Amino acid sequence: MNLKIAVLPGDGIGPEVTLQAKKALYAIGVVYDHEFVFEEALMGAIAIDKTGNPLPEQTLNLCLNTDAVLFGAIGDPKYDNNPSAKVRPEQGLLKLRKELGLFANIRPIKPYNALLDSSPLKRHLIEGADFTIFRELTGGIYFGEKKLNEAGTIASDLCEYSEEEITRITHLAFKAAQNRRKKVTLVDKANVLETSRLWRKVVKKVSQNYPDVLLDFLFVDNAAMQIILNPKQFDVILTENLFGDILSDEASVITGSIGLLASASLGNKNALFEPIHGSYPQAKGKNSANPIASILSAAMLLEHFGLHKEAKKVYEAVEKAIEYNVVTIDLKADSKFGTNEVGDFISNVI
Amino acid sequence: MNLKIAVLPGDGIGPEVTLQAKKALYAIGVVYDHEFVFEEALMGAIAIDKTGNPLPEQTLNLCLNTDAVLFGAIGDPKYDNNPSAKVRPEQGLLKLRKELGLFANIRPIKPYNALLDSSPLKRHLIEGADFTIFRELTGGIYFGEKKLNEAGTIASDLCEYSEEEITRITHLAFKAAQNRRKKVTLVDKANVLETSRLWRKVVKKVSQNYPDVLLDFLFVDNAAMQIILNPKQFDVILTENLFGDILSDEASVITGSIGLLASASLGNKNALFEPIHGSYPQAKGKNSANPIASILSAAMLLEHFGLHKEAKKVYEAVEKAIEYNVVTIDLKADSKFGTNEVGDFISNVI
Ligand SMILES: CC(C)[C@H](C(=O)O)[C@@H](O)C(=O)O
Ligand SMILES: CC(C)[C@H](C(=O)O)[C@@H](O)C(=O)O
Repeated sequence: MNLKIAVLPGDGIGPEVTLQAKKALYAIGVVYDHEFVFEEALMGAIAIDKTGNPLPEQTLNLCLNTDAVLFGAIGDPKYDNNPSAKVRPEQGLLKLRKELGLFANIRPIKPYNALLDSSPLKRHLIEGADFTIFRELTGGIYFGEKKLNEAGTIASDLCEYSEEEITRITHLAFKAAQNRRKKVTLVDKANVLETSRLWRKVVKKVSQNYPDVLLDFLFVDNAAMQIILNPKQFDVILTENLFGDILSDEASVITGSIGLLASASLGNKNALFEPIHGSYPQAKGKNSANPIASILSAAMLLEHFGLHKEAKKVYEAVEKAIEYNVVTIDLKADSKFGTNEVGDFISNVI
Repeated sequence: MNLKIAVLPGDGIGPEVTLQAKKALYAIGVVYDHEFVFEEALMGAIAIDKTGNPLPEQTLNLCLNTDAVLFGAIGDPKYDNNPSAKVRPEQGLLKLRKELGLFANIRPIKPYNALLDSSPLKRHLIEGADFTIFRELTGGIYFGEKKLNEAGTIASDLCEYSEEEITRITHLAFKAAQNRRKKVTLVDKANVLETSRLWRKVVKKVSQNYPDVLLDFLFVDNAAMQIILNPKQFDVILTENLFGDILSDEASVITGSIGLLASASLGNKNALFEPIHGSYPQAKGKNSANPIASILSAAMLLEHFGLHKEAKKVYEAVEKAIEYNVVTIDLKADSKFGTNEVGDFISNVI
């Protein structure tokens, strides 16, 4: 297979980890005789520094015209702590999600056996946990109108959802559930929010097409608690943009490190793959960031193109690294392996 | 001291647990020679059933003219699963918070020594954890304009904040931090939301009045993870309404049960005290709900009126119940004690 892949390393630890994902894909290409052509482009704080624009036209065009996007991370504290910055790195990612129509962000949560004791949660609670979060990615408060009055004393963000936006991701979530344990939990705040009530109504309606799948509801506050108390109760969690952002970072604790969690963002035409961790600027350039989330994002990319045995190979190589303790310090405080060594080990095993 | 206390038992397990809080307050009154006069009123689903209004005029007037409100819980599944219900129980609570101007909701999180092994989190992570969440309670997306188009296909909720709303709770949070470990962590999503950027700006400004307090920032997704990974890092968490709702339910896992967590909602004139758990309809009328959160809310009420030794007495009685294992099934699966027995034990110890 020939695939043209846009690579956006982004900010902070993004470049270091993305490099390891590229190495893994390269190894897969060699072993299975595929041609993966990578083209790098700028996005995020680094793109602002170099071009003034967090998502330069050229980057967007590249992404629109490739088979898939491999993305690193975005964000820089110099913008976070400057509330009045007009241009910010995250705008680049949000615009890219929107322009590529990546409405579904899929985040699988499943602990590795060898890491069951690395979680802050007790082992018996997480052993056997296996769920996937379907987060709506191009709607809600992320994209609604933002206002700040001239005096700078009143601000607002609009959270908006349409039936159509809810319907399309709901179908994906139910289809995924059909291939899993056949349960969808809609997380919302329907006792307070109008948008959540629309979600409930639409999801109920769509669920009628999937009589073999059980539909369940949970308020987001309760869900934030249940994910820790009893993660095994979940199969597919379906939720809106902001709740999905919060709950998936939270759920990362089940696996022992957010450095293990990958995600796929899918639209009707395009697809983007990224680790769920952020740019983690403190670790930048230290060869200490965990590359596994990025490598697993590459595996999700392979799966997306039907390359299942190739993806499996990557998963197995990652498992081997974990099994042999070839991991970064987030998983083993006294580890002598860095980003590069873990990445090398994994691509060598492939 | 004479105190007139409005009691709103509300829905689900609300009435059962509130009764135990009243018993505890009554016992304190006898021992310390205070006169607490209770007046009950309707709110929530039960108020809708009886009057059509989740917050009847009479209830509101009572609350406006008492020293404090003791509240149980609100909510009923028959409304949750009916997205088109026009009147809903939660409107009663939200309206009450607004009308009483209860802008600050204070939720202390601290595990009991005897329960360190009841948490889903590993003991060493939570031993010594002790933080308080300051949740803004009368602004944000809870109270912004809600819209649904006529076709019922597009919904929206507006999240709005003003400098003034942010300033007043920020002062409370910093004052609390001065009496604690002198650290405030503002939780927001300033990389995406305009309101969060206003929060950051205003909180920074207010913080200048408290040079002895350290101010720290965390994005809400990261905060949801950090609360589990390393809860000891927090002293005072300051945040907006919806984030506070989510994070405080989540943080309840540190204590082993949400049935242990109380809260105080304060305004300039009024004060309301409530457990943070909800109406938990499945347990209604079963004498199985944990009354401790409600009893601790009563203790927070006592503290609010400067009755510190009385509050301490309540805290000690609760600790004794926990120490002697006189607890409900959420804390000890095979417990033979119910709501009433735990409540009786505590008021007898007082
Ligand atoms: C960087 C930020 C805008 C982003 C988000 O909130 O969506 C990130 O947290 C994520 O989850 O991908
Ligand atoms: C019942 C509901 C409206 C309420 C809220 O979301 O504020 C509850 O969850 C709480 O935390 O007090």
